[in-house]
Amino acid sequence: MKHLNDKAAHNLTAVRGKKPLIHNITNFVVMNYTANALLAMGASPVMAHAQNEVEDMVSFAGALVLNIGTLTDDWVASMIKAGKRAAEQQIPIILDPVGSGATPLRTNSAKNIIDAARITVIRGNASEILSLRHDKSKTKGVDSIHSVEEAAQTATVLAEELNTTLAITGPVDLVTEGSRVLRVANGHPLMGYVTGTGCTATVVIGAFLAVDDDPVSATATALAYFGLAGEVAGQNASAPGSFMIQMIDALYTITPQDLKKGCKIETAN
Amino acid sequence: MKHLNDKAAHNLTAVRGKKPLIHNITNFVVMNYTANALLAMGASPVMAHAQNEVEDMVSFAGALVLNIGTLTDDWVASMIKAGKRAAEQQIPIILDPVGSGATPLRTNSAKNIIDAARITVIRGNASEILSLRHDKSKTKGVDSIHSVEEAAQTATVLAEELNTTLAITGPVDLVTEGSRVLRVANGHPLMGYVTGTGCTATVVIGAFLAVDDDPVSATATALAYFGLAGEVAGQNASAPGSFMIQMIDALYTITPQDLKKGCKIETAN
Amino acid sequence: MKHLNDKAAHNLTAVRGKKPLIHNITNFVVMNYTANALLAMGASPVMAHAQNEVEDMVSFAGALVLNIGTLTDDWVASMIKAGKRAAEQQIPIILDPVGSGATPLRTNSAKNIIDAARITVIRGNASEILSLRHDKSKTKGVDSIHSVEEAAQTATVLAEELNTTLAITGPVDLVTEGSRVLRVANGHPLMGYVTGTGCTATVVIGAFLAVDDDPVSATATALAYFGLAGEVAGQNASAPGSFMIQMIDALYTITPQDLKKGCKIETAN
Repeated sequence: MKHLNDKAAHNLTAVRGKKPLIHNITNFVVMNYTANALLAMGASPVMAHAQNEVEDMVSFAGALVLNIGTLTDDWVASMIKAGKRAAEQQIPIILDPVGSGATPLRTNSAKNIIDAARITVIRGNASEILSLRHDKSKTKGVDSIHSVEEAAQTATVLAEELNTTLAITGPVDLVTEGSRVLRVANGHPLMGYVTGTGCTATVVIGAFLAVDDDPVSATATALAYFGLAGEVAGQNASAPGSFMIQMIDALYTITPQDLKKGCKIETAN
Repeated sequence: MKHLNDKAAHNLTAVRGKKPLIHNITNFVVMNYTANALLAMGASPVMAHAQNEVEDMVSFAGALVLNIGTLTDDWVASMIKAGKRAAEQQIPIILDPVGSGATPLRTNSAKNIIDAARITVIRGNASEILSLRHDKSKTKGVDSIHSVEEAAQTATVLAEELNTTLAITGPVDLVTEGSRVLRVANGHPLMGYVTGTGCTATVVIGAFLAVDDDPVSATATALAYFGLAGEVAGQNASAPGSFMIQMIDALYTITPQDLKKGCKIETAN
Repeated sequence: MKHLNDKAAHNLTAVRGKKPLIHNITNFVVMNYTANALLAMGASPVMAHAQNEVEDMVSFAGALVLNIGTLTDDWVASMIKAGKRAAEQQIPIILDPVGSGATPLRTNSAKNIIDAARITVIRGNASEILSLRHDKSKTKGVDSIHSVEEAAQTATVLAEELNTTLAITGPVDLVTEGSRVLRVANGHPLMGYVTGTGCTATVVIGAFLAVDDDPVSATATALAYFGLAGEVAGQNASAPGSFMIQMIDALYTITPQDLKKGCKIETAN
């Protein structure tokens, strides 16, 4: 879709020009990699999680990234504090509900964060996203989705229920806020062999949210850019160690012009 | 030893086929690297340390990795909780007593974890392993071991005392459960210049424990595979930054057939 | 300055020969990278932050690195405990006041650490360092410094007030203890695109402090060595992912002879 490819180019240019501060309260595994991804793309990362600091820190930020990958109750409390302040100041928030559905702590924490603050975008895989349904949700479980059409239908219903934009990532990503549905087909199979590629997609979306007021276009264009970085990396590396380094390089070397040509974003409804 | 080389090939094939979930409660320094190593070899890592989550998480796991590298009392309590649950469910546990012997906190924590849960394998260097002796141990201290024969003798006595399999790693690794003693000679000198190579050997053993019921063969074959990854990396890199990336690549590219040819495992008694 | 280039060569040789233990209480983002940098240069890193361990651990160390990058009150308490013990034992301490000036927690924590223990060196960027002024400081704010001469003047006054050696890093680094002022011009623009390059400069200074009794020469020579690693990396890489790996390689491959030729240290007063 030409206008979204142009938007992708515009968003990358804006990030590199404005260097938005992205405040991350995230997991220990990916902190270094996501900070490097944000720097490589032109944004300015800060990681800060102390309960007596997060409100101060987020007030300077262009976007807030909340990621429950190695959560404890204390960290969730910090995420909620930061999320409330961000919501007050109209700062976009993206939640990565890592492992939601796998344990009660993760599912409940993700739901508590969603209840406490207006979340702009939630990015996860299908089972993480579907675990966020309310008890009375009209959406189906992950096991009862058997086609691309059912997945899109489920996502739109859930996005409306949660009053947010959802990004369900996989071989093809799905982005919806309940009415529009976009599919993003960029990516590379080796991305599944590097820890934190999902978490890194999340921070790239965070940086685009800092410069694009439309969460659906910010999310879809960020996922296309990140997937294109995977494609470029896959041309230069054939194993996951080299690939993860080439991903960082590609986030730095990809130009707005490359995005105009290379984004694979389609409307799905 | 041909049957162990065949077992190494079998174990790697099994990990890549079954993709066992490996639950890690580990140190902050190596989390990213060990997660990437597990992904590269074909396993599925999860890092989770909250006291109100570890029992839920470990119940799905093929193996539990406990590593005290950046311990605090809270983390040790989580390790004990997870270890008890894993022991109840017959899930293999590997302990990496990083720095045991260096400070009372580390030595006492390692001993408390061993007392609380049946540990399948303990991997460390000679001084870490020998610090785990009971007060009335019959084994000698590290300074009084002057030959390879004395080291093997000491290891077998200590393995019996602790009722576990020990892996004492160094230029040549020693694996014993008290009767069999195996030596593994794979490896490369640059492994000593990358942080967390010992911790990464531990998680590779963890993944093999998830598919091999014999802790001695799981441990020796994992160390041979990991050491071979070092040898392959050393052919492609001559400094530690490039080497650590090549190690991850090698864990991905090494085939079962390579293990049949390349493992250097010998019986030492 | 020939005698400082010779000192740089001497310090690197001494680190590689003595392999000093560097105790780090640092932030989650950079732990892996700074540990690898220390290993690559020939030192021996340990990360330990438990309040009931840091005094034991630091007592073996050649230097103590305190970094408030992802601080909480508990971690600051550990830093103060370790700092007091290090000061008692005449072990050099380097403080990296990451983000001081950005939030009250960071500014106050940095000041509390400085008040509690005699800090040998403080390394930060200009705004971090200037945030450490007392209320009645004679130094100007960062916005009122308009020339290189004013920066040097401000740094000398502040170093005297804080009774420490200051390293203000940027495109050109400034090192002073209040009387001597040195400038270090080594470096590469891509260093700004890798997370934790400032933190890594700090640990390299820490390792040199373990072998050089003069904080001014230890700091200036370490910054020259680290900047030269950036220059070497920049010859081999043109994007930040590859560059950060090449930096680690360069810390390993740079020889004392390279430092004799390549350090760009000048006296500035």
